[in-house]
Amino acid sequence: MNIESAAVNILKRGVELDTKKRYTEALVCYQEGLQILVDKIKGEIDDSNKAYLRKKVEEYMNRAETIKKLVLQQKEAGQFHEQVHIENNSTGHSYKTLFGRFLDEEVQYVSVEDPYIRSFHQCQNFLRLCELLVRSCPNLQQIVLITSKDGKSEGDQREWFTNLSNDLANYKIQLIVKFSETLHDRQITLSSGWIIKIGRGLDYFKAPENKFCLGVYDMDLRNCHETTVDIVHSKNIKQSYG
Amino acid sequence: MNIESAAVNILKRGVELDTKKRYTEALVCYQEGLQILVDKIKGEIDDSNKAYLRKKVEEYMNRAETIKKLVLQQKEAGQFHEQVHIENNSTGHSYKTLFGRFLDEEVQYVSVEDPYIRSFHQCQNFLRLCELLVRSCPNLQQIVLITSKDGKSEGDQREWFTNLSNDLANYKIQLIVKFSETLHDRQITLSSGWIIKIGRGLDYFKAPENKFCLGVYDMDLRNCHETTVDIVHSKNIKQSYG
Repeated sequence: MNIESAAVNILKRGVELDTKKRYTEALVCYQEGLQILVDKIKGEIDDSNKAYLRKKVEEYMNRAETIKKLVLQQKEAGQFHEQVHIENNSTGHSYKTLFGRFLDEEVQYVSVEDPYIRSFHQCQNFLRLCELLVRSCPNLQQIVLITSKDGKSEGDQREWFTNLSNDLANYKIQLIVKFSETLHDRQITLSSGWIIKIGRGLDYFKAPENKFCLGVYDMDLRNCHETTVDIVHSKNIKQSYG
Repeated sequence: MNIESAAVNILKRGVELDTKKRYTEALVCYQEGLQILVDKIKGEIDDSNKAYLRKKVEEYMNRAETIKKLVLQQKEAGQFHEQVHIENNSTGHSYKTLFGRFLDEEVQYVSVEDPYIRSFHQCQNFLRLCELLVRSCPNLQQIVLITSKDGKSEGDQREWFTNLSNDLANYKIQLIVKFSETLHDRQITLSSGWIIKIGRGLDYFKAPENKFCLGVYDMDLRNCHETTVDIVHSKNIKQSYG
């Protein structure tokens, strides 16, 4: 695969997502593809090739700008809604790939509602999410987790959260864990207004077959259970956190 | 932190690395910083700000181009040498951050010489490296590991490599493990000519304090042992693999 075809593949994927109105994902593809094309132009000697690439860059840049405005309008109107369907046994759905594009310097508080952050591997999923938040949100101050108690190993669960909480404190991030026995919905709410609702909650990855499989660490290589992800935006979130 | 200061920080880091002749790392910073500035220009209304940003973009682009040529010249002359010193207890040194910039579509074969891929956590490090190679090198065909046998758990070690080998086969990548009792040097050789020599080999991460620490999964958050990394380029590698 040469560099140009890499750009073509990413841009094609962008158009595909764009057609499905999965705008924020399309934007990521357009931006990555454009970066490759722009680098390509710099190295191109042939004038007609250069002109062709320039034209393509302009086209995709304009489309990217249009999408940005569209997303902004939808956010303002409280009408933003994107849906991602994760197929059974598909890969490429790490937390970062799924919603990393919404994690930025605007995020100061994150609330995670998920009744199943109880068993060891579920709590490890939550740890992975915390790692991603720490890396992506430089102004993060607080994570609130609302989950249910693990009947079998409540003591362990408490110890795990205590360890995680102590470590997050080193990054000046407060972890607050609340228990609810009536919680059913699963959603991640960012103080920037984005709400990510994963049908299965954080626990949508299949277990690896053994400890030496690709995908033990890199969740983009891990097979998934079928689930639907809805992403919406609300302007009223900042207030309730304020 | 606003977007502009994010760009400034990355570009500053680029200049710092540039001054230390750590050119390929500097390039990554310049490119990331430039991307942010270019995005910023699009959204900027004030003309004098726009002109200022344009000037900055041009400056850094020119420097990036110069470095690219410099690296190419050094590679051609067989004189490329970059050294990274990892300080004791520092973070930000995952395999991807350390040498991910050399992993691309040019890499078809990778050889890993490291006498200490023996214990469980060392073999897990090797798994992490394999995950990174699979994700970054679309044309990868073969990984050769040369290491030594684990006196204590040779059976386990063999089983781990068998599992990994079976899984890599799903990606059409062959894993060949060779054992040597006299091996001392540690180096990763890419068929594209890059050679990465890590003083301690792959095992330069400190163990996490417990299983719910940040850095259990994201190695950029993991504390490191002190070690020195030398990166060189040889034009003769393709032949020996050919």
